[in-house]
Amino acid sequence: MIKDSSRFESTYLKEKAIIEKKLSGLLKNNNPKSLYEPCSYILNSEGKRIRALLVLLSAQAAGGRFKDVYNAAIAVEILHNFTLIHDDIMDNADKRRGLPTLHIKYDLSTAILAGDNLIAVAYQNLLKDCKSNDRRVVEAFTKGIIEICEGQSLDKEFEVRKEVSIKEYMKMIEKKTAALAKMCCSIGSQISGGSKKEIKALEIYGLNLGIAFQLQDDMLDIVGDEKEFGKKVGGDLMEGKKTYLFLRALEKARGKDKSDLIKVIRKKGIKKNQISKYRNIYIKLGVIEEVKQLVEKYTDKALKAVNKIDNAGSLKWLAFTLLKRSK
Amino acid sequence: MIKDSSRFESTYLKEKAIIEKKLSGLLKNNNPKSLYEPCSYILNSEGKRIRALLVLLSAQAAGGRFKDVYNAAIAVEILHNFTLIHDDIMDNADKRRGLPTLHIKYDLSTAILAGDNLIAVAYQNLLKDCKSNDRRVVEAFTKGIIEICEGQSLDKEFEVRKEVSIKEYMKMIEKKTAALAKMCCSIGSQISGGSKKEIKALEIYGLNLGIAFQLQDDMLDIVGDEKEFGKKVGGDLMEGKKTYLFLRALEKARGKDKSDLIKVIRKKGIKKNQISKYRNIYIKLGVIEEVKQLVEKYTDKALKAVNKIDNAGSLKWLAFTLLKRSK
Repeated sequence: MIKDSSRFESTYLKEKAIIEKKLSGLLKNNNPKSLYEPCSYILNSEGKRIRALLVLLSAQAAGGRFKDVYNAAIAVEILHNFTLIHDDIMDNADKRRGLPTLHIKYDLSTAILAGDNLIAVAYQNLLKDCKSNDRRVVEAFTKGIIEICEGQSLDKEFEVRKEVSIKEYMKMIEKKTAALAKMCCSIGSQISGGSKKEIKALEIYGLNLGIAFQLQDDMLDIVGDEKEFGKKVGGDLMEGKKTYLFLRALEKARGKDKSDLIKVIRKKGIKKNQISKYRNIYIKLGVIEEVKQLVEKYTDKALKAVNKIDNAGSLKWLAFTLLKRSK
Repeated sequence: MIKDSSRFESTYLKEKAIIEKKLSGLLKNNNPKSLYEPCSYILNSEGKRIRALLVLLSAQAAGGRFKDVYNAAIAVEILHNFTLIHDDIMDNADKRRGLPTLHIKYDLSTAILAGDNLIAVAYQNLLKDCKSNDRRVVEAFTKGIIEICEGQSLDKEFEVRKEVSIKEYMKMIEKKTAALAKMCCSIGSQISGGSKKEIKALEIYGLNLGIAFQLQDDMLDIVGDEKEFGKKVGGDLMEGKKTYLFLRALEKARGKDKSDLIKVIRKKGIKKNQISKYRNIYIKLGVIEEVKQLVEKYTDKALKAVNKIDNAGSLKWLAFTLLKRSK
């Protein structure tokens, strides 16, 4: 579907390695160790580094060079890791990418502080790549953080609320996940001196890609391959999360299916042996198919946004690759 | 001792009221409420607003106007409030300024998120006052946050360490408290277009004032008036905190005094009825008198730094006023 697919993939792998090397060296010699060891621990843990890649590829699409935005790319990756640390505390998560989460490996205070510090370290790195257009770039970065906090706050609020509309859910993932992808594209293209039109197009790309990514994540939670996906299949249902799939199923269900779904809310989750029952309800109601189509719809929107941009080949490749991912 | 003392005081009170009005209106209409109500709760709680004042007075000393740095003044106050929220979690504190702390009034997740969000809201406000010199101002602001995190990390580390040197303690308070005061003076004077020399002088003023302030705080904990001071007298001893007073007493003590002091470390604090015993040890060893002299020494350094600056009258007044404070 995409020409030069293997070339784009090798660029991704090469740049991912560069980003990881920069991240692992970044805070190595900083003191006090009680603060910087945990910061390095999370920065060194494995990740797809998609957000850093979005900064690099948006810079390229706006006519810029990777080497002028590496610090900004690192900044968004650091910011993403701050959210992981604090989200893991809020979600009581013990493990992340197979390793103990920060508040488990160290303690609560250390994890809170490491997250706080990473926000500032992210700004510090971003500023290294800012030139004349500092203010708008820092503003976009700051707006991104605020939206992440607002999104996370809605997510926590939805956990305890009885009713959540699909519109509200979409607003939440737009803020919690998609706003950061949008911000990555925004700062990458802005630092590279992209035109207003290019910046806008790349922002639309990032936002829609982010929404598609999150909906896909919701879907893979129930139909994904446990080994490939790397997360427990059915985890969202076990935790009673009100995902798009769940909310849409609740809307469409009647009779026993409906009362079974309401039970998930009332009991704040289900047991592992009930997952296949609920998967069958989802399949019967056609919500998995619906979400698949939605993922395609948002991916198409992302692709369409950058259609008139010359150097957007790798961004298109990324969208196709994420769409067919199983992890 | 200071001419025009009452004029300076009325300026302080007037500006404090302006800052509080701005702070109370700032996030009033923001959504989601689950995030912004707790943010407003802390911003509306009482405070001396000294950090905001430092921004204003440093701008004035550098030849600028208050009205050009109000947003920056609000930014440092917001930043200070972020540190209060997260520090209260780490210290397991139930009350702050007579009110329930955020994680008690709401919950842990809400408090973590509100603090995170306030960091970004602080940047958002700072940026409103940035013009051509954005980058250096944002850099100074960012460096301030990193130093606060490093200082807090050292503070937590010292709680569990058996031995802490006075030099290490001084480094800790320099980062945890004084770096923010220095940053306030730095950004106030930079935004106002102060000369390099003026900026440097005001930074030295802020740093030394911050150190004096913290040492005074340590001292008031043991000799302060409970009602006026607003905090429990002897609280540091009860929590087994290794303050300057404590570390210096440990250095000077011999025999039973020494073993009594070592008990504070071993038992991680003392009972309320033992406070006067330890106060007497401090008095006998002369450490309270020593700290008083240190507070004066650092205040003098602060005053000397701004001696050649024309418009520094109010900064001098502030240093004198803080020096004689009992709360």
